[in-house]
Amino acid sequence: MQSINFKNNRLFYLDQTKLPLKEIWLECTSLKEGFMAIKKLSVRGAPLIGVFSAYCIYIHLKDLPSNKEKFLKKLKESLEHLKSCRPTAVNLSWALNRIDEIVIKNKDKSLIRIKKIILKEAITIHKEDIILCRKIGEYGVKLVNKGDKILTHCNAGILAAGGEGTALAVIYKANRVYKDIMVFADETRPLLQGARLTAWELAKNKVPVTVICDNMAAFLMQKGQINKIIVGADRIAANGDVANKIGTYSLAVLAKYHKIPFYVAAPFSTFDVTLEKGEYIPIEQRHENEVHKIINKVLITPADVKAYNPAFDVTPNELVTAIITDRGILYPPFKYNISKII
Amino acid sequence: MQSINFKNNRLFYLDQTKLPLKEIWLECTSLKEGFMAIKKLSVRGAPLIGVFSAYCIYIHLKDLPSNKEKFLKKLKESLEHLKSCRPTAVNLSWALNRIDEIVIKNKDKSLIRIKKIILKEAITIHKEDIILCRKIGEYGVKLVNKGDKILTHCNAGILAAGGEGTALAVIYKANRVYKDIMVFADETRPLLQGARLTAWELAKNKVPVTVICDNMAAFLMQKGQINKIIVGADRIAANGDVANKIGTYSLAVLAKYHKIPFYVAAPFSTFDVTLEKGEYIPIEQRHENEVHKIINKVLITPADVKAYNPAFDVTPNELVTAIITDRGILYPPFKYNISKII
Repeated sequence: MQSINFKNNRLFYLDQTKLPLKEIWLECTSLKEGFMAIKKLSVRGAPLIGVFSAYCIYIHLKDLPSNKEKFLKKLKESLEHLKSCRPTAVNLSWALNRIDEIVIKNKDKSLIRIKKIILKEAITIHKEDIILCRKIGEYGVKLVNKGDKILTHCNAGILAAGGEGTALAVIYKANRVYKDIMVFADETRPLLQGARLTAWELAKNKVPVTVICDNMAAFLMQKGQINKIIVGADRIAANGDVANKIGTYSLAVLAKYHKIPFYVAAPFSTFDVTLEKGEYIPIEQRHENEVHKIINKVLITPADVKAYNPAFDVTPNELVTAIITDRGILYPPFKYNISKII
Repeated sequence: MQSINFKNNRLFYLDQTKLPLKEIWLECTSLKEGFMAIKKLSVRGAPLIGVFSAYCIYIHLKDLPSNKEKFLKKLKESLEHLKSCRPTAVNLSWALNRIDEIVIKNKDKSLIRIKKIILKEAITIHKEDIILCRKIGEYGVKLVNKGDKILTHCNAGILAAGGEGTALAVIYKANRVYKDIMVFADETRPLLQGARLTAWELAKNKVPVTVICDNMAAFLMQKGQINKIIVGADRIAANGDVANKIGTYSLAVLAKYHKIPFYVAAPFSTFDVTLEKGEYIPIEQRHENEVHKIINKVLITPADVKAYNPAFDVTPNELVTAIITDRGILYPPFKYNISKII
């Protein structure tokens, strides 16, 4: 199972807005299309938008001027434009900064050479992501016990990364090791990534999964039905504050109250040590239509009523039990332990 | 605005499953129709199903035998049948027990007389409910301050009662007094009573309301955007444990963490002092289709994936700041204070 596919110099992606009802693969043939695919969440998930955006820039090269100076100027503009597409997940700008840096380093080379270097970097970012996911799974499985009932939020799986994901990489690995893991997937309103995507990929991969509405998580915790919570992240500040899909903070508070471990799984590319703490992470506000209408189809509120739609929230580090990274498991004090490995 | 209407010996109800898109009034002409209207949540809300069920029994009398002995036997069966319709809200059996008791008290009277007595009792239950709601509003407004931003869950308003509701009675009253109250309405998955019903009735009555997804409440609390939480109840045990719509317990835990007052509003008929504590309250499990499909229309999960759908949860009394009743505001120790007034 894959969420994007780069072959014969062409970039394809699974349109995640159509899942789970339809599996539609589309081709991205321009920067504009790539931008919209990310904006509309056809391609989503912090690590995946990093990988996809790097390929997208490569696809875009054919549309740039053949004069090198103009090429480099336009390329820079395109990188900045694509970075602006979604503000919260840092992996997007992390991947595009890698392209930017390698271009700067090789700016004296020929255009043909620079284009090849960009392609190579995009492929490297993709391959690295697959390895990062595997390592997160290998470290994370040490935190899971036989028979665990694990709650996850949104989608941090194959559909969110080049590899097996972050939170779900741990779950896939644990499922292979123990064979008796149970997963509860928060449906994750408003865009239902849990109900639509996590349930879809776990079921396809034969991992037992039960979908719940977001407001049922506390009830399950109260009944002792959840042993641990594992979620992904869109950006982690230097002090360990975690930006992730709206509803994550709620789970972290509930986990604290019920004394359930709350784990965040993320590759090093999700850390933004330039930000001292989570309150500096920009939170994307999305259109209230996403609350008004379910998957853009069924109106569920009076048409003219106000709605509020922050796409992410920030969980303060004191609510995080540990962060599972590709470089090992980090425990508090996070500021110190993050600074050591990043 | 009303949610049921009894006139010229006929019982009409607003089909709440069609709101907010369509306002459809239906007539209930038999016990079977009334049973289904409650079962399918066309008529819902703890106080309202009490009132409606009493009228429904009166409508049903025409279908009972004319022999008094058989009439009384069949009536008893019908009362038990209707009580079994939904298990959690105690107001249903409370209202039907009132009918039962008044029939027993008058069983030596003529059938015509007994039927008139049943009608009078149903009308009394309805009129009383309107007064109870008003009193809850009058007591509850004392807890509200000018400019308060109040979060509510599910629908505990005009659509849930004979009068102005319970939680929303407080909000309506506060809105009339202060004119600057802001309401946040949890959409309340799976059946979206907040998005569909609370938003609809508050907007119609010019109370400023913003709909949020259930998983956004914690974010607003973290940002200091919520001053208090007011919810209704389906049943309150002798110790003050509160059964209410799934997601209520989650809010109560979040309120505790954020040091926000958590108020429950309910008339005396919602108290069930025969139950020592909340864990004895039966929790209705509803069909997983309600999670799979939004308002029975749009499938949002893979069709064959498991889902879990408890309709209610129980909030332990230690998370409740106060209970606003028609007989005054109750504070801890709830066991003692409930026993004094019920």
